[in-house]
Amino acid sequence: MSQFSVNILGCGSATPTAFHNPSSQVIDFRGNLMMVDCGEGAQAMMRRMRLKFSRLSHIFISHLHGDHFFGLPGLLSTMALHEKSGTVTIHAFEAGLEVLRKTMAIFCPDPGYEIVYDPIKYTDATIIDTDALTVETVRLSHRVPCVGFIFREKAKSRHINGEMVRFYNVPTYKMNALKAGEDYTMPDGTVIANGRLTFDPDPAMSYAYLSDTAYNPALAEKVRGVSLMFHEATYSDSDENNAAKRGHSTARQAAMLARQAEAGQLMLGHFSKRYNGDEERLLTEAREVFPDTILAKEGLKVELI
Amino acid sequence: MSQFSVNILGCGSATPTAFHNPSSQVIDFRGNLMMVDCGEGAQAMMRRMRLKFSRLSHIFISHLHGDHFFGLPGLLSTMALHEKSGTVTIHAFEAGLEVLRKTMAIFCPDPGYEIVYDPIKYTDATIIDTDALTVETVRLSHRVPCVGFIFREKAKSRHINGEMVRFYNVPTYKMNALKAGEDYTMPDGTVIANGRLTFDPDPAMSYAYLSDTAYNPALAEKVRGVSLMFHEATYSDSDENNAAKRGHSTARQAAMLARQAEAGQLMLGHFSKRYNGDEERLLTEAREVFPDTILAKEGLKVELI
Repeated sequence: MSQFSVNILGCGSATPTAFHNPSSQVIDFRGNLMMVDCGEGAQAMMRRMRLKFSRLSHIFISHLHGDHFFGLPGLLSTMALHEKSGTVTIHAFEAGLEVLRKTMAIFCPDPGYEIVYDPIKYTDATIIDTDALTVETVRLSHRVPCVGFIFREKAKSRHINGEMVRFYNVPTYKMNALKAGEDYTMPDGTVIANGRLTFDPDPAMSYAYLSDTAYNPALAEKVRGVSLMFHEATYSDSDENNAAKRGHSTARQAAMLARQAEAGQLMLGHFSKRYNGDEERLLTEAREVFPDTILAKEGLKVELI
Repeated sequence: MSQFSVNILGCGSATPTAFHNPSSQVIDFRGNLMMVDCGEGAQAMMRRMRLKFSRLSHIFISHLHGDHFFGLPGLLSTMALHEKSGTVTIHAFEAGLEVLRKTMAIFCPDPGYEIVYDPIKYTDATIIDTDALTVETVRLSHRVPCVGFIFREKAKSRHINGEMVRFYNVPTYKMNALKAGEDYTMPDGTVIANGRLTFDPDPAMSYAYLSDTAYNPALAEKVRGVSLMFHEATYSDSDENNAAKRGHSTARQAAMLARQAEAGQLMLGHFSKRYNGDEERLLTEAREVFPDTILAKEGLKVELI
């Protein structure tokens, strides 16, 4: 099972085409699935990618444009047919939740699992905070209110150094304290520094989903140092004016933000259909600015390691 | 351009699978497109089958289950992006129209073409009547109110017999009268029977869409003699109990109705996913009762001739 991965269900813009589904991704965080955006066709892609409905617990909707939302009633209804249990929380702007609630009341009044409707605001805020993870919204610059989502793994436990622990005869019940970074005091009062008994933890990973948005350098500060940044790249350099006008970005602008934010890696998506079959062009433009860039693609799974 | 054809966009039941999309068909009547049901993925299939948005004028929704409806917001929004003009009329039960209206108000407030919301009733009625065609609703027997749709071409004009018309020197301005079946009176008062001056018209064709429904022999009278009958065949003989319980039919029951109604041809669809890859079994069962039966399939176009 993946520790932390991003699965691409759709990375086209607006209209579904033979090349791309509209926006949808699934974050697999230690076996718990969280969907970000839900364009039409997301449910079919989940099945094709063997992402289990039973493990889906949260759905985050960035904004109320159909290519990020219209897969939702179908997904929620299909999960009911598949005898999904437990809870799914939908995080979206209020107007979207309202129409979704009405749709479900007519088309799927008894889903058999609990749907929680959680209104989000067009602001920077932490909306989930567990022992292992936070999820934050971040204001984007689109034609309508739109937020990005940042998934940050919390600092992980230190690894026990088995050899040293045996050497100092540390009792088993102390292991959790060691993992949390505490020193160990021996029966004779000698203090053994934690650093002698443990190794550094694996680094905590983070993922920023930034779509849809015009280029906005002020974002860099908010996503500084994320391990992986997904940034929309609807257009190529040649359509930069169009991008600004429509509240979208070029591939190069996405790369500029990744560089300013010192992201670990950049993934481009939300491609305009005008580049179908020619998206390498977007990749080339971005890599001129930020070399560690990849293209999203339906079916792609990116492990954060 | 097709005179009268039925195009299959989806013929699976409920959940989309790798094999089938949910229900949707497009009737092409002399270049005018009318959609029947609109499951998720219908817009993508229209494009794949090169059925032009610009020619779509009516959408008929049989009942308010998501696999017959959830493709609608996406289709209507995509048509707006494609600069669709003119009018599209949605014929559906009131509750569905209401939630659709709200959805469009949020996600696509300015489609650029006119959407007309036409509430239908759970009854037998003629809902469209033009010079060339009628469309009727017919009550079906499902778990929720559900209607079938019958498309009947009106009687066509008689064909002019060029040789005889020249022989009797019939003036050009009389041709429409001849096509309509009138006799011709010569200047000397001699009456030439229409049958000497014209050939019989091409037969008027008709199409009945019956999905979703339990087997209901009373339907036979209402669809007697249709050229092509689409009837749902969700289940095989072995699941007959399930069919009755769920308000669906077996393939054999569909064939029984086609035989009772003396349909020209039967097309089966709305297949349960349990037969994915094994639908020949449904075809075999139906053909034992009604030999002129075919299976629906995504991408199939059936010409009514």
